[in-house]
Amino acid sequence: MMNRRMILKRVGQMLVLESILLMLPLIVSIIYREWSCVTSFSATIGVTAALGLLIVLFIKPANEVIYAREGFAIVASSWVFLSLFGALPFFISGEIPNYIDAVFETVSGFTTTGATLVADVEAMSHGMLFWRSFTHWIGGMGVLVLIMAIVPTDSGRSMHIMRAEMAGPVIGKLVPKIKDTAKILYILYLALTVLEFIFLLAGGMPLYDSAVHSLGTAGTGGFGIKADSFGSYSPYLQWVVIVFMYLFSLNFNLYYMLILKKFIPVIKNTELIVYTAVVFISTVIITCSIYPIYNDAHDSIRHSLFQVLSISSTSGFSSADFNTWPSIAKAVLFILMFIGGCAGSTAGGLKMIRVMLLSKTVRRDIGHMLHPRSVSAVKLDGKTVDQNTIQSVSAYFALYVFLIMTTFFFISFEPFDLETNFSAAVSCVNNVGPGFSIVGPMGSYAGYSDISTIVLTFAMLFGRLEIYPLLLALSPRSWFTRSNKRKFGKAN
Amino acid sequence: MMNRRMILKRVGQMLVLESILLMLPLIVSIIYREWSCVTSFSATIGVTAALGLLIVLFIKPANEVIYAREGFAIVASSWVFLSLFGALPFFISGEIPNYIDAVFETVSGFTTTGATLVADVEAMSHGMLFWRSFTHWIGGMGVLVLIMAIVPTDSGRSMHIMRAEMAGPVIGKLVPKIKDTAKILYILYLALTVLEFIFLLAGGMPLYDSAVHSLGTAGTGGFGIKADSFGSYSPYLQWVVIVFMYLFSLNFNLYYMLILKKFIPVIKNTELIVYTAVVFISTVIITCSIYPIYNDAHDSIRHSLFQVLSISSTSGFSSADFNTWPSIAKAVLFILMFIGGCAGSTAGGLKMIRVMLLSKTVRRDIGHMLHPRSVSAVKLDGKTVDQNTIQSVSAYFALYVFLIMTTFFFISFEPFDLETNFSAAVSCVNNVGPGFSIVGPMGSYAGYSDISTIVLTFAMLFGRLEIYPLLLALSPRSWFTRSNKRKFGKAN
Repeated sequence: MMNRRMILKRVGQMLVLESILLMLPLIVSIIYREWSCVTSFSATIGVTAALGLLIVLFIKPANEVIYAREGFAIVASSWVFLSLFGALPFFISGEIPNYIDAVFETVSGFTTTGATLVADVEAMSHGMLFWRSFTHWIGGMGVLVLIMAIVPTDSGRSMHIMRAEMAGPVIGKLVPKIKDTAKILYILYLALTVLEFIFLLAGGMPLYDSAVHSLGTAGTGGFGIKADSFGSYSPYLQWVVIVFMYLFSLNFNLYYMLILKKFIPVIKNTELIVYTAVVFISTVIITCSIYPIYNDAHDSIRHSLFQVLSISSTSGFSSADFNTWPSIAKAVLFILMFIGGCAGSTAGGLKMIRVMLLSKTVRRDIGHMLHPRSVSAVKLDGKTVDQNTIQSVSAYFALYVFLIMTTFFFISFEPFDLETNFSAAVSCVNNVGPGFSIVGPMGSYAGYSDISTIVLTFAMLFGRLEIYPLLLALSPRSWFTRSNKRKFGKAN
Repeated sequence: MMNRRMILKRVGQMLVLESILLMLPLIVSIIYREWSCVTSFSATIGVTAALGLLIVLFIKPANEVIYAREGFAIVASSWVFLSLFGALPFFISGEIPNYIDAVFETVSGFTTTGATLVADVEAMSHGMLFWRSFTHWIGGMGVLVLIMAIVPTDSGRSMHIMRAEMAGPVIGKLVPKIKDTAKILYILYLALTVLEFIFLLAGGMPLYDSAVHSLGTAGTGGFGIKADSFGSYSPYLQWVVIVFMYLFSLNFNLYYMLILKKFIPVIKNTELIVYTAVVFISTVIITCSIYPIYNDAHDSIRHSLFQVLSISSTSGFSSADFNTWPSIAKAVLFILMFIGGCAGSTAGGLKMIRVMLLSKTVRRDIGHMLHPRSVSAVKLDGKTVDQNTIQSVSAYFALYVFLIMTTFFFISFEPFDLETNFSAAVSCVNNVGPGFSIVGPMGSYAGYSDISTIVLTFAMLFGRLEIYPLLLALSPRSWFTRSNKRKFGKAN
């Protein structure tokens, strides 16, 4: 049987942590004297902390052993409860009066999508906008990884959880202890966030705006606080965000290597090189295509690079309305939505490394067709990629396309055009945020009905957790079949 | 070295066959006294036959052995030359004055796509429209399979060619001899075509129209001869085409089994069941969504079923303008474009069996995640599918998505909306024909520039030949590397 008590215990811990994290927007609300916000956050903290503490104090699992399926179940249920409770402030304050919409907004936050149902974002309070962007930061690196980093004792079997919560086909431990890996990742994450914050302040951005945008960039989320997103900020501030959107879409392991002064493997990292090349080529194409609109080289390059990095890092900020750009610019951005950032970053999408592995596999198969008895392996960074990884990447890709198609099907009951619905599905599954046409960068998802909102909410969660954890948690097989331990053994 | 003489010999044979097949539209032109057509066809026949005979008579390969790569090269070059020469009548007669457009139209015919550049199809001559639809019939089952069926002597190594030209992940020989398999397939194909012809005649359709539409349905092509495609024909005639679009999108092996009175495996054929179920469910959804437009149950069901089968069989005929239908109806048709028909039929698309294998693989992998040490195989029709097939299906799927994206990228330099360009790419790669918006069922591809026309021409060829043959033929590695026979051996 599934170790349900252990799953519940983890969810309890997560709720306690969430109530602590909610203190930060509470403080912001107090500073801005937004008393309706203060009430909403206090009530939410009370409920969340009470339930979390009850679980943590009274649920004592008979054993702490976690198998793969418990790992998946913990991740899936944590994310669902995190969002259900995280939505309460929006709902209680009445700033998002429909609870389904509030959950959508919260999931969009935690999954670092940045898709919004709020038609007039400037009418919202400081406290709520801060919480909205803070969810990006929490969800970016993963709330369970955060628990690992800070909760003192922990069984050694947390690798399952980390693997399920962090993005990408292969998660490497930086150091032998998983707990230390989580700590290092969060320190790097915090340091980079603070660095952006300082650069934004230095450019004259107000304190509040700098904090909110740093949190949103770090999680590659994209919730803004202005109707035109980043359009009215100065070119310098746009450049700062460009640089940090790039940095947050790279594999965090590379930063750790830089600290250890291992420069060569960083420079030679194939995913980094290919990702950078794709960003560069995309920017060149878009710059040429939008030059006639802006008639200025610097503006064209900046807007082009901003939008390319915003989409490829799956942030979703915008400095210009790319909905009105030429077809080729939109096509490039559309393709970038699928690719996303690098594995081990806070970015969403398929991840560059998966695209690379898929194309390497295809190339190997073609070689195999020409010379049927030749044996050749797929290599990456000089190492042979094992057959299991290749297979699971192919299978994931199929599942990913099915997920996009299923989402697209279910939201197509709405009377919107194909461009809107299809790009909404692609954007939500890849955790980008904006799509095209009605859901473009200056639009919102407000037009969707409750049912479609729920579908898109699941699409974002599936995309963020890379499908399997949620799929397994939703399958009755995981919960009700007996695990024959002698037969199946422990997962490693 | 590649056995180039053998490749050239096959291309020569194919050209001779094409000149013979061109006699049929020549006769049609004579009957209708379209002298400009008669001249164009005669000139084309003269050139094609002369070149073909020169090659066949003077090229004597030192050995007749064909390896996998020669098979791919033969298929790729045959299809290219078939189209380049098949386009001559349109060009010489001036009915399609641009040679690039003429090649597009011809490739669209042979690949059974049915996408047209002709804005006013009713202005074309009988002879040219007949040739246009006849190319569907020739391309449907494959011109090289036809050669196998009729050329008296042949080496035993033609399986490579058949495998490369026929659609689907697994091609089974019906009978031990490949030549006999080809013969049986063509007899079944001809018989079904004649049957449709009789049913159309019986419904009062003129002789010429019946012939043209039977050829177009058999190849699941979709070129029509009226501006509104099938819109103005009677409901009975539409029903006949509905039935035959269904029949031609099924695996032809099933018909052979029916002749052998093996009924049980046909009824239990999983691909047939799933394909029929998908058609049924799609029809139900679309019928409900379009009922408010037609306000009549029979009309709604007929138009719904017609469009569903037209798209899923990748024919592309239309009885109504689905471009004006509700979003959900368009979404269902859009998804059906990707799936296509069954393997071993004349239909295009990914093929239902590939979609089934992909989802079964995904389900197996999920089971494997829950129980890491369990061993389970993917089964189809009660038999275990071997791991190589599963892997090659996954790799093909990735390549197929890359192909769609690449096509989409290159045609996006056109100033059309995303819906037009993306659906044009999807439609051409899957050999469907119509897309949405500007390239919808009542529109045409006439707005595309020469460069995009060439891109879409390649997309159709890649889609019809299932990518690999053309990709290998375009790779310099195939032509210039030495084949070390001791190392690589013969392909089996």
